[in-house]
Amino acid sequence: MQLLDNIRVVLVEPMIGGNIGAVCRAINNNGITDLAVVNPRPDTDWNEAEKLACNARPQLAARKTFDTLEAAIADCTLVAGTSARTGFYRDTALTPAEFAPTALESAAHHRIALLFGREDKGLFNEELALCTHIIHIPTSPLYSSLNLSHAVMVCCYQLFQATANVELPTEKADEADTQLRERMFSLWREMMIQTEFTHDQKLEHMMMGLRRIFNRGKLTVPDTKILMGLAKQSLWVVDRWREAAQQQKENS
Amino acid sequence: MQLLDNIRVVLVEPMIGGNIGAVCRAINNNGITDLAVVNPRPDTDWNEAEKLACNARPQLAARKTFDTLEAAIADCTLVAGTSARTGFYRDTALTPAEFAPTALESAAHHRIALLFGREDKGLFNEELALCTHIIHIPTSPLYSSLNLSHAVMVCCYQLFQATANVELPTEKADEADTQLRERMFSLWREMMIQTEFTHDQKLEHMMMGLRRIFNRGKLTVPDTKILMGLAKQSLWVVDRWREAAQQQKENS
Repeated sequence: MQLLDNIRVVLVEPMIGGNIGAVCRAINNNGITDLAVVNPRPDTDWNEAEKLACNARPQLAARKTFDTLEAAIADCTLVAGTSARTGFYRDTALTPAEFAPTALESAAHHRIALLFGREDKGLFNEELALCTHIIHIPTSPLYSSLNLSHAVMVCCYQLFQATANVELPTEKADEADTQLRERMFSLWREMMIQTEFTHDQKLEHMMMGLRRIFNRGKLTVPDTKILMGLAKQSLWVVDRWREAAQQQKENS
Repeated sequence: MQLLDNIRVVLVEPMIGGNIGAVCRAINNNGITDLAVVNPRPDTDWNEAEKLACNARPQLAARKTFDTLEAAIADCTLVAGTSARTGFYRDTALTPAEFAPTALESAAHHRIALLFGREDKGLFNEELALCTHIIHIPTSPLYSSLNLSHAVMVCCYQLFQATANVELPTEKADEADTQLRERMFSLWREMMIQTEFTHDQKLEHMMMGLRRIFNRGKLTVPDTKILMGLAKQSLWVVDRWREAAQQQKENS
């Protein structure tokens, strides 16, 4: 199904070969074949990975490998990171079932990504910052540590189940991909610095706030261009201000 | 939770020690601790089982072992068998999500069992005949073979979800009311005018764009204050620019 073809599962620095294989099997059970691995360990046990992949070995062999997460998601619009923790800006986290309809709506037209972090430490904050959505898999409070392939299985199963209920949306403006979105965020960061809105310590905190606000819904390409234009315009004003101040200084 | 305490997961003649461990971890993630193993192989690799059980090792050690399936389910009312195949009397099979409410209704008062068969051959017909319900986990037709622990994870996750009391631990900030939101929008409007971002004709169109972007999700009070702060800061820069330009003019 076209929808599922547009979903990429991204493993960020997985530690255990067997888990990579088990993940490959799990995604294929649910009709998802696009597997990306970011910066795998040089000592990854690929024999164990093949063993656990079972009949999905060809799909394991067809995985994509990237040096950076940014490269792995550059062409993706919606990017969902899974997180076991709460806090940070995880208070907007969705369950896999809540996430599925949103994901499929995007996947009807664009490539999307689901990110899963390291077995021990999950995704880092700066990786979650690249995400448009955060998924939290509810667990028993008594035992919350999920196996990587189990987490992938639950998320992909919910997506696969939700394809049964999908109505293809009517045409919409193109969604912004990670590359465009990150260009926008870096312009806004620059604006916050140049307008002296905030000092260094608070800057990243403010950026998190902005990311949270702008990622609540899909940003289209035109939306993103409005936001970029606004930041550029403030930066233009800053330049005029500096110029005028400089000339004033020279004249006095 | 009492409901989940009444659910027993029964593995019938599992072949791979690692799977038994992974199953133990998966059920504990979902608040289920009662694990029964029917007729395990004498050469089961229990070290591997412990490794895959991770922190659920004590629960693995507390498993019950039975010589026969009949003994393992003797005290259970509802008994559900999982099956990958169709045919036999599997045409009445339920998905895990369909099965969950029925299961929990029984588990409120009685012990119930979920049966999972051998990795290669599943449950035999005479074993399915002991079941009151059949569960079938839907998969991609291209790749339908599920890992044992993945099958258990999906079923138990759906049961756990159906207990419905799973609320994400949230600490949510107050939402902005209309008054605050509109103050924010009018500041942004002012910023667009003063930074000369747009001319009159396009202004309202741009405002609609911004409203669309910011109203995709609920704006909290802190979010709104960040957005107001940004606009104020750009307006502050505009004032500095005008002042400098004015003084420059006076000096020249």
